[in-house]
Amino acid sequence: MSTRKLVLSVDTGIDDALALAALLGRDDLEIVGISCTYGNVLAEHALRNTQALLEVLQPDHQLPIVLGATHPSWAATFLADAGCAMFHGRNGLGDVDTCEYGAHTATPAIASLDDEGRMLAHTPQGMRYVDRDELAALAGVGVSIGGYAPSDRHAVLADGATLDAATTAINMNTTVEAPAQRTAGSELIAHAVRTWGPDVTVLATGPLTDVDTVLRLEPDLAERMNIVWMGGALTVPGNCYDLVSETNSIQDPEAANRVCMSGAQLSVVGLDVTHRCLMGETIPQRWSATGTAAGMLLARLAEFSIRANRASDAMFAAGMPLHDPLAALVAVEPDLVDLWTLPLGVQTHTGDWTGVRGRTVVDNARLNAPKAPHVRMAVNVHAQRSLDQFDLDVNRLLK
Amino acid sequence: MSTRKLVLSVDTGIDDALALAALLGRDDLEIVGISCTYGNVLAEHALRNTQALLEVLQPDHQLPIVLGATHPSWAATFLADAGCAMFHGRNGLGDVDTCEYGAHTATPAIASLDDEGRMLAHTPQGMRYVDRDELAALAGVGVSIGGYAPSDRHAVLADGATLDAATTAINMNTTVEAPAQRTAGSELIAHAVRTWGPDVTVLATGPLTDVDTVLRLEPDLAERMNIVWMGGALTVPGNCYDLVSETNSIQDPEAANRVCMSGAQLSVVGLDVTHRCLMGETIPQRWSATGTAAGMLLARLAEFSIRANRASDAMFAAGMPLHDPLAALVAVEPDLVDLWTLPLGVQTHTGDWTGVRGRTVVDNARLNAPKAPHVRMAVNVHAQRSLDQFDLDVNRLLK
Repeated sequence: MSTRKLVLSVDTGIDDALALAALLGRDDLEIVGISCTYGNVLAEHALRNTQALLEVLQPDHQLPIVLGATHPSWAATFLADAGCAMFHGRNGLGDVDTCEYGAHTATPAIASLDDEGRMLAHTPQGMRYVDRDELAALAGVGVSIGGYAPSDRHAVLADGATLDAATTAINMNTTVEAPAQRTAGSELIAHAVRTWGPDVTVLATGPLTDVDTVLRLEPDLAERMNIVWMGGALTVPGNCYDLVSETNSIQDPEAANRVCMSGAQLSVVGLDVTHRCLMGETIPQRWSATGTAAGMLLARLAEFSIRANRASDAMFAAGMPLHDPLAALVAVEPDLVDLWTLPLGVQTHTGDWTGVRGRTVVDNARLNAPKAPHVRMAVNVHAQRSLDQFDLDVNRLLK
Repeated sequence: MSTRKLVLSVDTGIDDALALAALLGRDDLEIVGISCTYGNVLAEHALRNTQALLEVLQPDHQLPIVLGATHPSWAATFLADAGCAMFHGRNGLGDVDTCEYGAHTATPAIASLDDEGRMLAHTPQGMRYVDRDELAALAGVGVSIGGYAPSDRHAVLADGATLDAATTAINMNTTVEAPAQRTAGSELIAHAVRTWGPDVTVLATGPLTDVDTVLRLEPDLAERMNIVWMGGALTVPGNCYDLVSETNSIQDPEAANRVCMSGAQLSVVGLDVTHRCLMGETIPQRWSATGTAAGMLLARLAEFSIRANRASDAMFAAGMPLHDPLAALVAVEPDLVDLWTLPLGVQTHTGDWTGVRGRTVVDNARLNAPKAPHVRMAVNVHAQRSLDQFDLDVNRLLK
């Protein structure tokens, strides 16, 4: 039996970290590289977080870890929003200092403001702190605050404030069309698909910007590309303000929609299944009880997320939804979910007769076109089996 | 083999009419009565339209045809909106004079204004013409214009105008809680279920107000009640302005949600399947070619709808969606669709963290509660088989 290969595109917050731990615990797969992108956090911090985690979880690793897209395809500047701090901590890793667990790479707080109240942003001039005036000036090339344009009242800055719409020039439905921008991460993914074709699975647990870039630059790769994406919500409410869209989807709806239309084999693991797969304290307590640095770190991450989710909604009374870990499991064991083949797309505009930006739903234009690109959407999950498998995989790593 | 029984709840526009024709063409079922409610048209006109149709389609019929709910559970006054005239004609039957085809009952234009520009409404004082001031005065007890409160910019009157929000007292999210109001229609349905239990299917092709009334007044009937409802949209865009909600659903979301929660066996035939089942001119041309009054009437109705749908959206290039006829077919032959069991609900409020009024989607509160009420949602359809069966049934009537 040949070993399954995975190439990862992550925006390492807590659930990306847990997914990574589960994958590292398996001996029947090989991770060929990790691309780190914006989303839960800035891409640069996703990179640091991923490095720090691997230093704890697998100190002798030789994995290439590279920087992917630093902003969505529709905006040249990106800021993580207040939701990051709430669900992933101000450093994306539950406010935990990974150095306490043996990491060399520090993971500084990133969702916070600096001493002068400026916000950390990835701008066309690189990562830097910007004040409100600078941010307004950047609006002309597109600014995304956690998926929202600054003039959108749902764009909530790290300090919990919204920008004054009068100071910003763009609105929700203004997106900046930009050509595909090659990144080290998109190159890593493209190289893996060129080399192994369908034998490598692209596992994306953040926005699809880099995957889209690969497919825009080399459309011929689509027919050999096998993608599993954590994102979207079809039959259940979303987790954005409108309860229609899902967070990975709203970060870059244009990119996600192009990937849906690309003809690549795309399996979507969204809230339909991750909200049915809740992890309480029992499992992390066992990790902690191993007494290992890795076990204690993972337990602290999980406990932060369990607490945050519980505080956010009664539906998470039983624990944190296993968003990214479930996508990782499905990449290896697809039969953990029921996949349903549909001409799914991602809507890009909000408004009468246009839809809801970020909504994953059937594309009416393809509804009665059987040969049009289809997507495999996970609509049901063997929840207990998935939890057990996840527990097993992480524990194998901790042994 | 015992004959299957159906009791109908209709808001007779064109597709209700076609559904009725198909059912009348079958010899393996018995319609035990028809309740006529508001929706596409005012309830009083649904009654007239249904009577006129039966006079043409089955002059010797002995069916009880009674008046059901005249307004939704959340509003005491109802007006049909401009969408009615667009898709069903100003009389709900494609502007066709049914008397030309042998009916005794005339079906007057109802979506139009009277000579003084007043609008026809069903008010607490019965059906009458009201002017804008009177309508504003009624807002305190709730006014529905095709499912929308007058202050909603989507409330479009028969003349294409919206009401001035300043003249109305209620907003979109203000609904008037009213106790269940017994109607002749709800009594007809309740009697059928009391008598035959699950051997009678309640086929509802309009808002669920009367079905809800039955279940509110006699909750014990739920466990013996078998409902097939044309309504909702789960995996495909809706057909209301927001492309999220569906028209039968938005007429009375509170009622629909209560029915979903009642524990009755509910199969939902929504846009997921009806938008995949399009009828072009070929079939109605054959009806017309029979030279019968019934055939020519049905063909004119279908042609009106095909034209209207085609003009409305490119997705209907192939013809009219068989909304109500498909629900009727499924009531008799459930295996024409794939039904998917879900803890579905209907959202009742629009807004951040509340959802979208009229959206049919999984209820998060029941997502991880396997014993909570579930609904069977049609998610795929044997479209050609359904079209063939529909054609066959109608032609049997025309013989």
